[in-house]
Amino acid sequence: MANDGILDNIKSPSELKDMTDKQLNKLSDELRTVIVNTVSANGGHLASNLGVVELTVAIHSVFDTPHDKIVWDVGHQCYAHKILTGRRDEICTIRTENGLSGFPKRTESPYDCFNTGHSSTSVSAAYGISCAENMKKDGGYTIAVIGDGALTGGLAYEGLNNAGRSGKKLIVILNDNKMSISTNVGSMAKYLSKIRIKKSYLNAKIKVHRLEKIPLVGKPFTNFIRRVKDWFRDEFFGQKNNLFRQLGYYYYGPYDGHDITQLKEALTAAKSKHGPVLIHVWTKKGKGYNFAEKDPKSFHGISAFDIETGEPRSSSKGYSDVFGECICKFAENDKRICAITAAMSIGTGLSGFSKKYKDRFYDVGIAEEHAVTFACGLASDGALPVFAVYSTFLQRSYDQLLHDAALQQLHIVVAVDRAGIVGEDGETHQGIYDTAFINTINGITVYAPSSFEELEYFMDKAVYHTDGVAVVRYPRGSETYIPKDYKFNKEPYTIYGDESADILIITYGREFSQACLACEKLKDEGISVCILKLNTIKPFSDKAVHYALKFGKCCFFEEAVKSGGIGESFGFELYQSGFKGEYILTAINSAVYQSKTESALHRFGLDSEMIASKIKNDIYNGGKENAVKEKT
Amino acid sequence: MANDGILDNIKSPSELKDMTDKQLNKLSDELRTVIVNTVSANGGHLASNLGVVELTVAIHSVFDTPHDKIVWDVGHQCYAHKILTGRRDEICTIRTENGLSGFPKRTESPYDCFNTGHSSTSVSAAYGISCAENMKKDGGYTIAVIGDGALTGGLAYEGLNNAGRSGKKLIVILNDNKMSISTNVGSMAKYLSKIRIKKSYLNAKIKVHRLEKIPLVGKPFTNFIRRVKDWFRDEFFGQKNNLFRQLGYYYYGPYDGHDITQLKEALTAAKSKHGPVLIHVWTKKGKGYNFAEKDPKSFHGISAFDIETGEPRSSSKGYSDVFGECICKFAENDKRICAITAAMSIGTGLSGFSKKYKDRFYDVGIAEEHAVTFACGLASDGALPVFAVYSTFLQRSYDQLLHDAALQQLHIVVAVDRAGIVGEDGETHQGIYDTAFINTINGITVYAPSSFEELEYFMDKAVYHTDGVAVVRYPRGSETYIPKDYKFNKEPYTIYGDESADILIITYGREFSQACLACEKLKDEGISVCILKLNTIKPFSDKAVHYALKFGKCCFFEEAVKSGGIGESFGFELYQSGFKGEYILTAINSAVYQSKTESALHRFGLDSEMIASKIKNDIYNGGKENAVKEKT
Repeated sequence: MANDGILDNIKSPSELKDMTDKQLNKLSDELRTVIVNTVSANGGHLASNLGVVELTVAIHSVFDTPHDKIVWDVGHQCYAHKILTGRRDEICTIRTENGLSGFPKRTESPYDCFNTGHSSTSVSAAYGISCAENMKKDGGYTIAVIGDGALTGGLAYEGLNNAGRSGKKLIVILNDNKMSISTNVGSMAKYLSKIRIKKSYLNAKIKVHRLEKIPLVGKPFTNFIRRVKDWFRDEFFGQKNNLFRQLGYYYYGPYDGHDITQLKEALTAAKSKHGPVLIHVWTKKGKGYNFAEKDPKSFHGISAFDIETGEPRSSSKGYSDVFGECICKFAENDKRICAITAAMSIGTGLSGFSKKYKDRFYDVGIAEEHAVTFACGLASDGALPVFAVYSTFLQRSYDQLLHDAALQQLHIVVAVDRAGIVGEDGETHQGIYDTAFINTINGITVYAPSSFEELEYFMDKAVYHTDGVAVVRYPRGSETYIPKDYKFNKEPYTIYGDESADILIITYGREFSQACLACEKLKDEGISVCILKLNTIKPFSDKAVHYALKFGKCCFFEEAVKSGGIGESFGFELYQSGFKGEYILTAINSAVYQSKTESALHRFGLDSEMIASKIKNDIYNGGKENAVKEKT
Repeated sequence: MANDGILDNIKSPSELKDMTDKQLNKLSDELRTVIVNTVSANGGHLASNLGVVELTVAIHSVFDTPHDKIVWDVGHQCYAHKILTGRRDEICTIRTENGLSGFPKRTESPYDCFNTGHSSTSVSAAYGISCAENMKKDGGYTIAVIGDGALTGGLAYEGLNNAGRSGKKLIVILNDNKMSISTNVGSMAKYLSKIRIKKSYLNAKIKVHRLEKIPLVGKPFTNFIRRVKDWFRDEFFGQKNNLFRQLGYYYYGPYDGHDITQLKEALTAAKSKHGPVLIHVWTKKGKGYNFAEKDPKSFHGISAFDIETGEPRSSSKGYSDVFGECICKFAENDKRICAITAAMSIGTGLSGFSKKYKDRFYDVGIAEEHAVTFACGLASDGALPVFAVYSTFLQRSYDQLLHDAALQQLHIVVAVDRAGIVGEDGETHQGIYDTAFINTINGITVYAPSSFEELEYFMDKAVYHTDGVAVVRYPRGSETYIPKDYKFNKEPYTIYGDESADILIITYGREFSQACLACEKLKDEGISVCILKLNTIKPFSDKAVHYALKFGKCCFFEEAVKSGGIGESFGFELYQSGFKGEYILTAINSAVYQSKTESALHRFGLDSEMIASKIKNDIYNGGKENAVKEKT
């Protein structure tokens, strides 16, 4: 991984067109070095970025960006793209506050034509763009780069289905790395692995492609070559009925995704087709960094790590681990327990379960809609399904939670991980909406533990003592501060602090830690405060509302969206119960851009410092609603 | 269509097992008569039900329901199933208040194992059930019946992908009627039509099947027959790489879905497979009723009609028509305008547009997620997309509205049809959630017109004078009552009535009609009321809140869910602005079961009679929040 400066001299990706393949390979090595250095310092997505270096270089050397448009599915593989498109000097700021985003952002560069973050959107977006380009006189090409993991998402299929046989120019690059975030599952994955077996095909195919490059051949001769090629492929490699061909795509591949020469040929060939093309490339996740190649799952999304050892700089027991242990304990004594993940078995703490209870573990792929309806099927027939999912991805399941689960009053459990602010992934991944969108659905119960002990208690309650849909939501990472004299009472709400105070803080979940720290600061300054911690946030207890009535000033701090959220509903009920004091709601009223979680909490007035200063300084000035809005 | 009573004597579907195919055909004729008579009187889904009569009869004659489980996708084709499973006498009550549901309901019969309504859920649910059955000692078969239209939905693909090659016993019946609600689109549809061309295959296939029925053949011989059969199929019909086989299914078909003998053979053969099976049957929508066969789209979901003429009993210009005219007008002068529908071109009023502006019309299939992300792609590249969708189906797009549209601040327009209570389709189809779930997303503007004139105005405003995501929501059916002296002021809110009154009704959309009628009743009794009609419901105007401050009693009537909805947010803001009067919110706090819309409005205290009586009787007793909950 030498670095003698091809990369440093690039001003625009158009310069790649004049480089030799040898230079492009050298450039790829340099890109890898930058990426490994950057991610080891800032954390981020490593394996996926290392896998697409040559592909990114090849795309930029064949296409005319930003006139031609690239949509990166998920977007966690866009680092090489960013470095090549004028962001070389800023890449060290990636995933930091006010720095470059770890995902494509339209506001960041004209080369980022569509923001991504959640999986499987690229084909739909790219097809939309290709239709818009089609309406222009000088419309360019549109390219969607999608991983095999993202292909398990129904949205990707909807997009492929709609664009297939549309006649529109659309180039879908299937980046097949034999793995999504967890090991890829389902029949599509197995289908792709069937293609992989036909190794000999790879080389044979390329040779035919090269024929096309002979200069001065006329159209009839090119067509003849094409027919020979088609015959060759169909006869010997059973490609006639290739699944993507059946879906209406010109299918090229599979190619070695680290062979720039092959890739350029394939991309150039795709340009000439009048209709959707699917180029199938094989890449290796983590390519070029030994530790990541060997264990790409652990190097998918990671914190800062030591380049020499591959070891993360910090690691401690998190909520996901506690959830994982908890569900294993249930499964040991109860054969009805099933665990479901949407391609996040490691992230959600289900690795142990997946090994121990293989026959009751379901990794359904990146398919959150299906995960919930599948859980409903299980529940309708006597099983006890627990779906573990990140808050942000549960957004995909809104209709299934409402239409399939809640309306049918089926007992499923949803373990909502990464609830609240998640930090560096930025606005597309924040877990701040689940409270509000679940609040709109009748018949769902939501528990919000603030400690490992409470998580264990509420998992039990959700699985065994709650009717209908039961949700337990908990934050990313480790347990946060809990005062020594705090005792969890196993009730829908808990009181902590000075009950004779006139000021009441109302909160739930992780935010309780910040409230407690604030109280201690205030106590030191002689200001006495009581805390009402909601343990069941939907439906919250009438008694909790009545308890709050006796205070003159109620301050609700919510690490979630304001509009339609719990703080608003609680305040409404409080007023309806005759509350005449001040109700001050601090919640989130805009997108939460990337930064450390602590910094985001501070910006939104939700850390202990801001809570304490708000109570100290504003409390006598009248309680104005105070949802904080970040500048875009 | 004779009726001499096979049907009338059936007590249980198990009796079908002993009937000859001739008797089963007779039974099918009788079922058709009952279905046509029922739907002509009650309205409902006709074409889909007539299409699956023989299929339903064949399933019940081969399988052991309710031990074996049938999941009906969408569920609008379950009438024959209901009639055969003990509900013959009640079928006349279908889709009426307290009558049978037009969809499968677990609470109605043990033969209905899973509730459906929205499309594409059946494979996921059935796979869940089959996993649960697998955990039992005497688990039965699980059958999903899914139409080719529903197969365009990503959820169906997620389910197929997850179940494929799982080794679990699952029988998916693809009911291919060459049409979803609108004409079927996309590459899957075209793939299926390719299969259709191979007509000769149909008969040949069956003959091979019959070989299997020769008694006393040993396992080796059966295997030999299978190999012959496979060779036969693969060589002559190119089935080796059939798309469903590639997805891991044993594929049988295509069969004539009206030939009970064929169907029984196929279903019996499927029972013996140890893994997922896909049976492909061809049916004719509307089969057996001339008018429906000729025009299945119009006979998809219909109101009561005249059997002799096929003419609907009533018909008048609706909001969908006005929307359709409006969008055509825009398109005439603006080439950027694109219209998108998710398989609902007729229902949403886009038929005219689809003919006039073919190249800017996109029917994306039953794929609401894709529709929004596709619209985002269009918008990101300079087009002006308008997605017309029923409120209930927009639930599918929550994440796309948030993640792809709002966070990216793209300008797309969503025309939300069937907003509010929809009537006879019942709880799965009510348009009462969009207000609340959109309320949770920052950066979306929502307009709620109360008349055709206002719809036109707000469509223009949404398309040309609103940044970001603009939503216009309007109810099913025709314009409702508007007082002659009411003038629309083109502002975010409108005042109507006696501004000197102490009582203020706050409302929006169609509910304004009921409020006006209530005011007239109250006026006759000497009670003076003012109405504040919100035209922009998100974000609602601060000035509207301040206007309400001067009233002693504010009564919000909302034809939508309470929790997280507009009435709650408005009330919260009102209190926060210092309101010390009574705030009485009447909204919906439970599922809305089937009935005429008028009746549902009455039950939830939202019709003019209930509004008037509430204001008259309760207004002096203190304003208690009053979300109405229907008994389950």
